[in-house]
Amino acid sequence: MFKEITNTIKKYNSFIITSHVSPDGDALGSSIALGLALKKLGKKVIYNIDPSLGDKLSFLTDITQLSPNKNINKYDVAICLDCSDINHLYDSNSIKHGEQIINIDHHINNHRYGSINFIDSKAGATGEIIYDLIKQLGVDVDKDMAIALYTAIVTDTGGFKYSNTTSRTHLITSELLKLPISPWKINKKLFDEHSKSKIFLIGKAMNSLRLYFNGKLALIQIDLNDLEEVGATPGDIEGIINYGRDIIGVEVAVLIKENKPGEYKVGFRSNEYIDVGEIALSLGGGGHIRASGCTMRGNIDDIIEQLKEIISKKL
Amino acid sequence: MFKEITNTIKKYNSFIITSHVSPDGDALGSSIALGLALKKLGKKVIYNIDPSLGDKLSFLTDITQLSPNKNINKYDVAICLDCSDINHLYDSNSIKHGEQIINIDHHINNHRYGSINFIDSKAGATGEIIYDLIKQLGVDVDKDMAIALYTAIVTDTGGFKYSNTTSRTHLITSELLKLPISPWKINKKLFDEHSKSKIFLIGKAMNSLRLYFNGKLALIQIDLNDLEEVGATPGDIEGIINYGRDIIGVEVAVLIKENKPGEYKVGFRSNEYIDVGEIALSLGGGGHIRASGCTMRGNIDDIIEQLKEIISKKL
Repeated sequence: MFKEITNTIKKYNSFIITSHVSPDGDALGSSIALGLALKKLGKKVIYNIDPSLGDKLSFLTDITQLSPNKNINKYDVAICLDCSDINHLYDSNSIKHGEQIINIDHHINNHRYGSINFIDSKAGATGEIIYDLIKQLGVDVDKDMAIALYTAIVTDTGGFKYSNTTSRTHLITSELLKLPISPWKINKKLFDEHSKSKIFLIGKAMNSLRLYFNGKLALIQIDLNDLEEVGATPGDIEGIINYGRDIIGVEVAVLIKENKPGEYKVGFRSNEYIDVGEIALSLGGGGHIRASGCTMRGNIDDIIEQLKEIISKKL
Repeated sequence: MFKEITNTIKKYNSFIITSHVSPDGDALGSSIALGLALKKLGKKVIYNIDPSLGDKLSFLTDITQLSPNKNINKYDVAICLDCSDINHLYDSNSIKHGEQIINIDHHINNHRYGSINFIDSKAGATGEIIYDLIKQLGVDVDKDMAIALYTAIVTDTGGFKYSNTTSRTHLITSELLKLPISPWKINKKLFDEHSKSKIFLIGKAMNSLRLYFNGKLALIQIDLNDLEEVGATPGDIEGIINYGRDIIGVEVAVLIKENKPGEYKVGFRSNEYIDVGEIALSLGGGGHIRASGCTMRGNIDDIIEQLKEIISKKL
């Protein structure tokens, strides 16, 4: 099923591997694994990866040098991984020089911008596709590739928890675990290590938590004062809204974060029946059915009343 | 490898299936799955399972009636699952009437109290062994068995995160996911749903969090007042100590919970090099290298000073 891709890889000698901006474990893990496999085939590989990576992924960049080599005009084929839109690529200008663009992704809305496109929306992660491709290329998956692919898969399936996790996800993972890797260490890095500022911020956020409408709406507030007191970094707020969403009985969780005096970033999550994408859209924002956001300005008490009114109508 | 067990199951007609007190997902899931398989073989099955189950597992007991049938003296074979010590069995008196005791477990310290013992300490969960046994019995794993076995495996491997998770764990899970089950729903029930009292208690606990010795010791305090204010149930405290342990740089986390005025339950967790089992033992408690606990009495400030002194010597 990868015939066009494997033929192209065999035919050419030098490859640039790139992915979307702010790469996550799937973008980075898929890129590293495929790059290592191509190197094993004697190909020249340039990684053109956004260096703005969180500390969580440093164990991956330790595996291989993400070439700060900026001589990126000389290559035969560009391979774009886990990126649905050419405009979301890191340094998207660079790939115009490619004779060929191979676009491999698992996002259903991929724009098919490649000269060769391989989009499998049933894959839980692009890493699953890359595993199959490496096998098709006749390369043995080694320990470093296994670490990279495990990271890719465990990231995009939320630790095998999300509904995109399939029988095949576990089958591939079963193969990866035949290599001497330590999945528990990777999981700890990705999911269970937190900065102290994040832990303190969780405390502040939980103190602000209020429930409305018989416990169906959970509202969390984080103001500039809280952020300053705990010395929060931008990433610290990530995931805190889920504490509201995961309370038994809650349908909608809202997190109001003060951006600057009088301006608030508002996040929405829902569990089963409320389309929070629609709510955010009506407030000038956007998102999906179960996760969305918008920016609101004005007096905080008025904003909360407005949000409660909008949400109460849907509950 | 199950020859003795499968022969015994084929030979006899009625079975009692039991497990340890306070059954977790592995104990309950393994029991239900094996019971369903035996029923498919036309056997009579009595579940003698501790009914003190948390709400989290109610989706499992919905699958099959856990026989409140108390006529448990009439059976041919007792099957004890996931229980290392006969004294830890729920209603251990009942199994003395058995002609045969089949003891199946994955705990390395199993006492081998059965007339047939099958102990595989390499299995991440007893559920993995039961999967193999059901196949050996020639029974097709159906949807309900798959739900029960998935629950068993995902519980004891901490969502495939713990170091007991193997290639085989994922291979079996891959097979289970061929049945039309919804792993994301099971994961949500087991790991991502919390009572509102628990969420509020996390807030209280994080407010009390203090770091000592360059951030190597994290100390969390929960007093009777906190518990009362949030309306906490005993289970709410579970896992809160991990918020301390999971802070980057922390080696030891301590959670001090007030049992009654002047009496405190103290939990310890460590990450890499401190044996907290030893610390707890020196204070009249017990546990393992990475998780332990004890009870302390006296003035809370004195207790904290004492703990800091003991721990500082090991850091």
